Amino acid sequence: MINFQTSPDQYKHWKLDIAGPVATLSMDVQEDETLAEGYKLKLNSYDLGVDIELADAVQRIRFEHPEVMAVVVTSLKPRIFCAGANIYMLGSSSHAFKVNFCKFTNETRCAMEDDSRHSGRRYLAALNGTASGGGYELAIACDEIYLVDDGNSAVSLPEVPLLGVLPGTGGLTRLVDKRKVRRDRADVFSTLAEGLKGKRAKEWGLIDDYFPRSKFDDSIKTRVQQLVAQQTVAGPGIKLTPLHDYKYVKLELNREQRYADLTIVGPAGPQPTTPAEIQEFGDSYWALQAYRELDDVLLSLRVNEPEIGLVCLRTQGSIESVLSVDQTLSANRDHWLVREIILNMARVLRRLDLTAKSFFAIVEPGSCFAGNLLELLLASDRSYMLMDSDAALAASEMNAGALPMSNGLTRLQSRFLAEPDKLDEVFGEKKSFDTEEAEELGLITFAPDDLDWEDEIRVAIEERTSLSPDALTGMEASLRFAGPETMDTKIYGRLTAWQNWIFQRPNAVGPEGALTNYGKPTQAHFDFKRT
Amino acid sequence: MINFQTSPDQYKHWKLDIAGPVATLSMDVQEDETLAEGYKLKLNSYDLGVDIELADAVQRIRFEHPEVMAVVVTSLKPRIFCAGANIYMLGSSSHAFKVNFCKFTNETRCAMEDDSRHSGRRYLAALNGTASGGGYELAIACDEIYLVDDGNSAVSLPEVPLLGVLPGTGGLTRLVDKRKVRRDRADVFSTLAEGLKGKRAKEWGLIDDYFPRSKFDDSIKTRVQQLVAQQTVAGPGIKLTPLHDYKYVKLELNREQRYADLTIVGPAGPQPTTPAEIQEFGDSYWALQAYRELDDVLLSLRVNEPEIGLVCLRTQGSIESVLSVDQTLSANRDHWLVREIILNMARVLRRLDLTAKSFFAIVEPGSCFAGNLLELLLASDRSYMLMDSDAALAASEMNAGALPMSNGLTRLQSRFLAEPDKLDEVFGEKKSFDTEEAEELGLITFAPDDLDWEDEIRVAIEERTSLSPDALTGMEASLRFAGPETMDTKIYGRLTAWQNWIFQRPNAVGPEGALTNYGKPTQAHFDFKRT
Repeated sequence: MINFQTSPDQYKHWKLDIAGPVATLSMDVQEDETLAEGYKLKLNSYDLGVDIELADAVQRIRFEHPEVMAVVVTSLKPRIFCAGANIYMLGSSSHAFKVNFCKFTNETRCAMEDDSRHSGRRYLAALNGTASGGGYELAIACDEIYLVDDGNSAVSLPEVPLLGVLPGTGGLTRLVDKRKVRRDRADVFSTLAEGLKGKRAKEWGLIDDYFPRSKFDDSIKTRVQQLVAQQTVAGPGIKLTPLHDYKYVKLELNREQRYADLTIVGPAGPQPTTPAEIQEFGDSYWALQAYRELDDVLLSLRVNEPEIGLVCLRTQGSIESVLSVDQTLSANRDHWLVREIILNMARVLRRLDLTAKSFFAIVEPGSCFAGNLLELLLASDRSYMLMDSDAALAASEMNAGALPMSNGLTRLQSRFLAEPDKLDEVFGEKKSFDTEEAEELGLITFAPDDLDWEDEIRVAIEERTSLSPDALTGMEASLRFAGPETMDTKIYGRLTAWQNWIFQRPNAVGPEGALTNYGKPTQAHFDFKRT
Repeated sequence: MINFQTSPDQYKHWKLDIAGPVATLSMDVQEDETLAEGYKLKLNSYDLGVDIELADAVQRIRFEHPEVMAVVVTSLKPRIFCAGANIYMLGSSSHAFKVNFCKFTNETRCAMEDDSRHSGRRYLAALNGTASGGGYELAIACDEIYLVDDGNSAVSLPEVPLLGVLPGTGGLTRLVDKRKVRRDRADVFSTLAEGLKGKRAKEWGLIDDYFPRSKFDDSIKTRVQQLVAQQTVAGPGIKLTPLHDYKYVKLELNREQRYADLTIVGPAGPQPTTPAEIQEFGDSYWALQAYRELDDVLLSLRVNEPEIGLVCLRTQGSIESVLSVDQTLSANRDHWLVREIILNMARVLRRLDLTAKSFFAIVEPGSCFAGNLLELLLASDRSYMLMDSDAALAASEMNAGALPMSNGLTRLQSRFLAEPDKLDEVFGEKKSFDTEEAEELGLITFAPDDLDWEDEIRVAIEERTSLSPDALTGMEASLRFAGPETMDTKIYGRLTAWQNWIFQRPNAVGPEGALTNYGKPTQAHFDFKRT
């Protein structure tokens, strides 16, 4: 069982130092502290365990240290910033693990960019040594990149020439779409094992500047001071305590049948209504705790339960209570903590969109698919709602833009691409819909009556779990993201899909493949047929 | 050697009837007329040979029958429109062939949509029987879809449930992006082997209407008459004669070194300058013939020369002559034939963008990378231009929008995403650039001098052809399409990449895979781990 929870006092590979408005995240990977056996994490190379700490650190900065305005990402190792994902780990991992590892790494980088875009925190990659592969991909997830100019240190994406795979955790897409590096230069750079050093790297737009070693620390400090001076200070933060037993999430695994029942329990009891009260509730506030639990369970399902192909999503609680939480969130969205709580909800929901499992939403009397929890239904591949006058769905302001998908649309916009007028109906006078109304409006897929209900759900589950899991993954990745594409969807769609393909190919992972033979006395031999 | 050239008198599987403004394209696949051995094309299922005829027919309608305003796509078989790509053909094909087959099929469907969008010709799918899989994908490439209502005929995408692969020739993307079918309905439809019949298919937006068999032909006729009445008539057409020996394209294969030299020869001698003269030149007009030859050679390289991983693109001729052709084309772009010639150029260049081989442009004195041919350089992964005062590049109005990439941008816009001001420089007073100017402006990648020239090119070729062909395909597919995505790029990027992945997976093509076992007494068995 891989555990995605950690905290700074347990970090093995990162140090998180907070000094007023500046956080320094220093990578100091411990070679032997690996998540699995058979490899050593040399040269600040990383495995999933290293990235789980990074994801935690970014999350904690947002909630625990809102006063931080700039995050310096650097390394404590001399002459090396980060050598990227560990090759021997990749070479010895299952295909499914490689894919999930890359997805999580991508999500962590998107979380940094989300912080930058929405919370205004600036990320600086202070490359005090070479950043190669995933190391450079981590750097381009930052807002600014500075490289030491010592005659040796370089930035590079050596995956294609050395390993026969892609810089697949956002690298290629961010190169041409975020940093807008000219495609011919990106082509040269991505096939150059040794990468580029200071002057040319800057000229080509791969870094923002370079400084000699003697002036490196001071130059970074100066730049950080400029950034910090421009910004305003929020705080104080709240503590993110460990999630022990879930309070708002119930998971029932039906491993034999390859599906899981996942229930989210709505808020109960008195809820805070002002920022001050929310601050007092801290991480026990339903809107934060329920989504932290949901995030954790999704991550665990991905890597610990690969054979679970279908998740039946249920909710349980009072629609009014969910809507009342949404009202509080909407009314106070400008407060830093409320903003972070909403942004976290959005990230968790995007994690669900990007999870390679089928989701069916099941709506019955007593469920509370309302407002933010309505997004769970909208994110599902299908929904089944019992034809019963006591079952209801309800929309809130939170469905109108606060929780966008990776493609920039709300899930309702995505759903009603063909009939945008329906959005007005959803957000009209009447924001609550019984089964008949929900069906008429097109909010749900099926509305079986009491007689058919159990059979229909059972058959739907049996049918879904009998299908090819690969075909379902490809199908869902195509159907879930209608409409526009963004850098994020390009990373998860185009780049990831190509990498997944390459990760299966004999030229990478066969006995003569480049990934298999990396670092061995044997050499890779390619089948040169172009596909 | 697969030959992509054909003509209606050679068609085995399609009938093309022209009656004034209405063309009828009827599918009547001959079971035994297959491109390879080991399968029969039952139930109007198709292989690459069938699609080559369809592509030819669409091309001929545009050039030979500009008076056609509506194209009815239907079948001569009773009760079946088209059963899609032949499963046994897919099951017995190499991975590379499957991928190239799907790409060509996608391109043919995009060519129909290109005709509809830019030339105003309306495509009607008259489904006189079931359209399943690729058959329905062909239908959704049309503007309107009508299904016979006979209690049996249905539309379906049974790939996921029956074969464990995707409806990968545009199906899933067109479902949610073109027809904007709600994603939960698309999910249900794409997992329902038997598909949906008239009423529900219409309700879900899968078809535009349905008619009983007794009224089917008349209803189609009525609709066609409505479409035809709204439009204006062009013509007369020009004849597309067979391409025998290439006149403007020279191909030299260096199979041992796995690269090809491809030279496009510019226009020479007197060129037409008015539509009437162009009409007289017909398909021997350089702007049409050179691009038809280039199209043919690209298609042949893809399927007949899989081990050629790199194409060195050269041009030869007079820059002034190319620019003069561009001037004629630009000045007369509203004439139907000129419009078709330009649109054909654009399609051929997009075919190049989508070809899974590396392209290096090589610029020397005597070359003519100008105007429309400058696009070849801009489409290349890299360019090398000899530092010589006699070498030059030149821009024309044709580089400013007439030849867009699949993502909707011009290749210059794509190139200068980071520096859009450079576009003004390219299109300023001075439209011709020597090597130094081209380098300064960022039009080229490298500008070696005479001393280094041959070595640098040789080393670049050796390096490129030594890399993993799979990694290069994935890398180029990511770097070539910076900026926005469109339905087309989603089909070629997201959907195709996922399908390529699935086409490699044991659950599809392994001994126990669904594709392998289709139609056999044995059953597929899946590894249910979700990836």
